[in-house]
Amino acid sequence: MAHSAAERVDEQRLWRRHMELAAIGATQKGGVNRQALTAEEFDARRLLVTWATELGLQVFTDDIGNLFLRLEGTDPELAPVLTGSHIDTQPTGGKFDGAYGVLAGLEAVQAIIEAEVRTRRAVEVVAWLNEEGSRFTPGMMGSEAFAKLRGLDEMLNVKDRDGVSVSAVLPEALAATPEAIHRPLGSPVAAFVEAHIEQGPELERLEKTIGVVTGIQGVRRIRVAVTGEEAHAGTTPRATRRDALEESSRMVAALYRGLYIDDDVRFTVGMMQIEPNVPSVVAARVVFSVDLRHPDTETLADLADCVDAICHREASMCEVEIWQIAEAQSIHFNELVVDTIQAASDRLGLANMRIFSGAGHDARQLHFVCPTGMIFVPCEGGISHNEAENATPSDLAAGTRVLVETLLELSET
Amino acid sequence: MAHSAAERVDEQRLWRRHMELAAIGATQKGGVNRQALTAEEFDARRLLVTWATELGLQVFTDDIGNLFLRLEGTDPELAPVLTGSHIDTQPTGGKFDGAYGVLAGLEAVQAIIEAEVRTRRAVEVVAWLNEEGSRFTPGMMGSEAFAKLRGLDEMLNVKDRDGVSVSAVLPEALAATPEAIHRPLGSPVAAFVEAHIEQGPELERLEKTIGVVTGIQGVRRIRVAVTGEEAHAGTTPRATRRDALEESSRMVAALYRGLYIDDDVRFTVGMMQIEPNVPSVVAARVVFSVDLRHPDTETLADLADCVDAICHREASMCEVEIWQIAEAQSIHFNELVVDTIQAASDRLGLANMRIFSGAGHDARQLHFVCPTGMIFVPCEGGISHNEAENATPSDLAAGTRVLVETLLELSET
Repeated sequence: MAHSAAERVDEQRLWRRHMELAAIGATQKGGVNRQALTAEEFDARRLLVTWATELGLQVFTDDIGNLFLRLEGTDPELAPVLTGSHIDTQPTGGKFDGAYGVLAGLEAVQAIIEAEVRTRRAVEVVAWLNEEGSRFTPGMMGSEAFAKLRGLDEMLNVKDRDGVSVSAVLPEALAATPEAIHRPLGSPVAAFVEAHIEQGPELERLEKTIGVVTGIQGVRRIRVAVTGEEAHAGTTPRATRRDALEESSRMVAALYRGLYIDDDVRFTVGMMQIEPNVPSVVAARVVFSVDLRHPDTETLADLADCVDAICHREASMCEVEIWQIAEAQSIHFNELVVDTIQAASDRLGLANMRIFSGAGHDARQLHFVCPTGMIFVPCEGGISHNEAENATPSDLAAGTRVLVETLLELSET
Repeated sequence: MAHSAAERVDEQRLWRRHMELAAIGATQKGGVNRQALTAEEFDARRLLVTWATELGLQVFTDDIGNLFLRLEGTDPELAPVLTGSHIDTQPTGGKFDGAYGVLAGLEAVQAIIEAEVRTRRAVEVVAWLNEEGSRFTPGMMGSEAFAKLRGLDEMLNVKDRDGVSVSAVLPEALAATPEAIHRPLGSPVAAFVEAHIEQGPELERLEKTIGVVTGIQGVRRIRVAVTGEEAHAGTTPRATRRDALEESSRMVAALYRGLYIDDDVRFTVGMMQIEPNVPSVVAARVVFSVDLRHPDTETLADLADCVDAICHREASMCEVEIWQIAEAQSIHFNELVVDTIQAASDRLGLANMRIFSGAGHDARQLHFVCPTGMIFVPCEGGISHNEAENATPSDLAAGTRVLVETLLELSET
């Protein structure tokens, strides 16, 4: 039988909070531009802390600006159970990616409070800093710093396009919520559960409400730099050109032709930085991104080798440099957490399926720290990282009920 | 026999002025970033007017901010002979493109003054506003406004990437040289001669000092917009993607393969604007530039049709829009001016050749207003629109001597 707290999840309230948060950084096309460490994100932090304070939660932060909202347990000495996600978006983001995980956490805690349930371990809602990595690249800063997978100093030195560093703006983020108590980075955690929209089409297609996430597929993030020579577009004969944009286009086209060896491949060139990027000047240099994913680690390695081979094959007059900026192995979540989420979904009578995550999430980093799992809910048309991103109030509430059940189970362990 | 004034051209002084002007907006790589209507360009206007005032020239400006430095003639009622070019550069420009034409004009006037020659018509050195069109696109603003080929209001409303309009910054340009007397746009001109570096390799290859320019090749400036749909790079299967960067790359690669039907074709994709241009997001929209030139007007029209056909052929999941933003026919300069430049070069004993300009210049616009011609000097390796742009002091001085001769001839007509 389900806990009474799950019944306290308020679909309307959860939806209203989503809309209220989405108003901060709202775009004309109905999306959200609320990049980490910008004025919009500071406002969102403020709003979150206002809600938490109304619920009587304690607020903490750490050296990288992660935000923790704590519902105390009956045994305050025990490590808490964590749930949450991130409140930053990419420049053309939607209302749910990240925000859902944080607001589902807050709703779950409120439901637990209203049901007058006391948990043994504290339950904390976390908003990890800069998951998207838009203004400050790469992302996953908060969870990676927390899991000590990257050094804090390295992150603090990351600069945006204007040369402003994370360390220069982080004090503003902290000043937005002066009531937050500082705690050391990477304090003990008993378990972590992240609720998230699927960001893919499978749940909707198979008419499931809950995705019980079994792991996250591996990814390689690669950069290719093509260096030619600037020249006048009107005068320079083809024979003496070293056109970085011509050769980059040939490489990108060839990569899209060559890399799709099976349906599980996810290959994307999403960014090109072109110098000088002027219509009348032959491009001197192009740096483009490669985002390459595959559930199978060996296939992923083979595909990364192909990127190298294809780019070198397509280069003629230009020089090519290729380097990997990040690599993540496919991971498989803790079976206890996966089974707990599965059991909660079944108990609540929700149609569910096991699913492997195509996207990376903060949960990947937490997996290296504590037993971790994720709950997916459907998003409309599988569309995400898009201003049109959408989900139904009832699916969001259903996922939150599964989260309540899961948190209550894990907080007693 | 050559005029005595040509002997007064001072190679060292001309070179020193180039270096002094190049210091304004100097880049680390030895180039110049002095975009029109920026603080750097205002400083350059100031410097120019300082030099002109020392020579006793009168300074004028007009509604679009062109700058005229006038050496009075014996008959002030006659329309003046104009010479000059532009002092703005693109972001990664060199020391000579544009600057040479203005400084050669100033040197020519100084040589005429020092030789104590009085011309019948006034001789004016002009710096046309915003030839490059980098901050405010498109370029050729000063000469197009002067020649009334585009409306003044249209130009004043052009905005930069931050939404700042030409009309908002133009007063700052005018305030930089308060001594300049305002005159109406498009005052009468007897003739125009523009000295310029070749921006191509021919003069150097054939060991000629002077290029007697016979005309300017036609150009079509086209934009191609490819609209797909934003999606998550890690989750969205290939079958449901509408990847604007994938299809744009295919188009650009195909255009470079298909359009080079002869050695006279000049085809360049120099700019791509990608939205959102983030590594982990499938691109929703790409707008890329096509710069297409050919001396033969009919071939140029055929090639423009090919751009259309190839882009539509390569599109699959995305929508394509193609539009032309500018079209210029090939033009042929006034024979009297061309012959005058030719005769001057011969008289001075300088190795010369007739040459057709691959690049567009302010002289194109003046061609529609008055008898017009151009003098080319070699640039090192044919390299231009590049921070490494270079020319020799003696070639620059030789071109200036031809300019002196030409101005003296034309000012007596």
